[in-house]
Amino acid sequence: MREQPGAPGTLICPAPHPAADRIQLGHGSGGKLSAALLRDRFLPLLGNEVLCQGGDAAVVPAGPGQIAVSTDTFVVQPIEFPGGNIGSLAVHGTLNDVAMMGGRPQYLTAGFILEEGLRFEVLDRVVEAMARSAREAGVQVIAGDTKVVERGKADGLYINTTGVGLIEPEFRPAPDRARPGDQVLLSGPIGRHGMAIMAAREGLAFETEISSDSACLVPLVEALRSAIGDDVRVLRDPTRGGVASALNEIAVASGVGVELEERAIPVPGPVLAACEMLGLDPLYVANEGVLLAIVPAARAAAALAALHSHPLGSRSVFIGRVVAQHRGLVSLSTTIGGSRVVDTLPGDQLPRIC
Amino acid sequence: MREQPGAPGTLICPAPHPAADRIQLGHGSGGKLSAALLRDRFLPLLGNEVLCQGGDAAVVPAGPGQIAVSTDTFVVQPIEFPGGNIGSLAVHGTLNDVAMMGGRPQYLTAGFILEEGLRFEVLDRVVEAMARSAREAGVQVIAGDTKVVERGKADGLYINTTGVGLIEPEFRPAPDRARPGDQVLLSGPIGRHGMAIMAAREGLAFETEISSDSACLVPLVEALRSAIGDDVRVLRDPTRGGVASALNEIAVASGVGVELEERAIPVPGPVLAACEMLGLDPLYVANEGVLLAIVPAARAAAALAALHSHPLGSRSVFIGRVVAQHRGLVSLSTTIGGSRVVDTLPGDQLPRIC
Repeated sequence: MREQPGAPGTLICPAPHPAADRIQLGHGSGGKLSAALLRDRFLPLLGNEVLCQGGDAAVVPAGPGQIAVSTDTFVVQPIEFPGGNIGSLAVHGTLNDVAMMGGRPQYLTAGFILEEGLRFEVLDRVVEAMARSAREAGVQVIAGDTKVVERGKADGLYINTTGVGLIEPEFRPAPDRARPGDQVLLSGPIGRHGMAIMAAREGLAFETEISSDSACLVPLVEALRSAIGDDVRVLRDPTRGGVASALNEIAVASGVGVELEERAIPVPGPVLAACEMLGLDPLYVANEGVLLAIVPAARAAAALAALHSHPLGSRSVFIGRVVAQHRGLVSLSTTIGGSRVVDTLPGDQLPRIC
Repeated sequence: MREQPGAPGTLICPAPHPAADRIQLGHGSGGKLSAALLRDRFLPLLGNEVLCQGGDAAVVPAGPGQIAVSTDTFVVQPIEFPGGNIGSLAVHGTLNDVAMMGGRPQYLTAGFILEEGLRFEVLDRVVEAMARSAREAGVQVIAGDTKVVERGKADGLYINTTGVGLIEPEFRPAPDRARPGDQVLLSGPIGRHGMAIMAAREGLAFETEISSDSACLVPLVEALRSAIGDDVRVLRDPTRGGVASALNEIAVASGVGVELEERAIPVPGPVLAACEMLGLDPLYVANEGVLLAIVPAARAAAALAALHSHPLGSRSVFIGRVVAQHRGLVSLSTTIGGSRVVDTLPGDQLPRIC
């Protein structure tokens, strides 16, 4: 409340903000404002024949066999960062998970939690990035939902995406299929996504800006599939928890050990500098555009050539091998000649990076 | 910071709270705390062969034909209320949407946003309710995700669920299939969910406690399907926006008018009292356990008998009919003999009810 100019001492309530440029609670009501939000801001960008049918659920073909389903919620802060925003990340992150299980991503659902007061211009950029990423990946957003919470009850917006892919029985990579003797491939330099977020959040400036590697990994999976088919034993995108956590999970699931060569693992200079400044280990930093592939040694050269054939995999390398020793553990041969266990971390190295 | 007892004037940081009974930021890290949360609190309740495989995506059979997919995010406040909690609601809400499109719900994904400081005892009750509701509905939770945000950045927890159901071509209810002459059926009294939430939130006390009607509607859909098959033209669960908004959407989608009889629409006494106290119209209040069915007049008696055969539908009634006049509009013949248009509301009647 403030003093009314014409009547000293009298308190009046301020006029409600017109808020024509931002989200209001009513946009989550299921009424006219909700319908306008859908019509004006979501459907023009994400719309397709299925989404525009507008029933309670989308009905889509699902082929003759199995489907791969993955869900992921995105709470990244800041919402926009070099190399992407929460919208592109929400598409890439979930599609990549479907692809890692051998699914060909077809459909995506999107659930939004919008904070009252979120500016439309921000929402528009996020939805545009979702639409572009989905189009590039050849998937359709077939169902969506929008809720609005009061100011302060979300950081601008949170997004859940659930992806559905079609599975063909002759291609079934899985975390429990690594075998001693297999080679571990990495499709690109690590640490970019996590460090881009941290630099943006903390206002860190480096000589070279670090941008997120957020990308759709489907073309790399297709290249591997074409080259060596089901000899692709394990695929994993090392997101939250980084390469270290992803390989630990595979070691446990397959009941094998993994030996990494530190000198083989590419870490961009600015990422390394940022990690040293913040006291972080790049092996634990999140990536959103690289994959780990585990393949039999005899097919490793063909797999590497396949990865190299796509720009996203042009810097792919061998980083280690699967062994029968120290089952369930990952070890690292360091550049100074020693060896150490690379365990999972107890808690957070970097919160809110996806 | 507080003063150190032994050294007056010296400030020390307090010891970190042990927080063994609640969510910490590290539970969202992808490291050991995340794994413990999954192992100790989610898998014992929600686990099944698919979920326990732990890959990036779940791989499940999807039959020969089409699938129905629906996504919904739940931000209800309070988290727990008479008749359910956010967990049971997140299962019922999404499964019901799948069922309304004729899908037989099979799979569910669950994405959690947990607030730092959320007590485990609350989380446990929510996950237990999810597990129980999913079991009763015969669906499996096949994939999940957990993120943690800082204190104040969520109201305890938010949940997204995405449901997948199998479609058989001979049963395809859809919002655009209503035809003039059809009858409108309602499977039970309205307004209970929205008023239960409002009463719990506002601390309103009535002679009779209002409890949410949150329930899985699949058995009612199966009863209708058995009785009259694809003559079930439209199914809709009137959630956010209530019966009024649901019928408006159907009227627009089908290009028809809908005429309702106010006297035929059952509103429980306590719901009516609460609505009068709060100045609300029960036609706009959310339900989570009733459905609207639109069927040809010639099959209406059989449809009503089918609904009556299940306890959840024992109070089913005809509430109106589909007409060729006033296309896209819903009208109400009132108990005092007049008639008025029942439009959709511009914004919120009740925020955060699902």
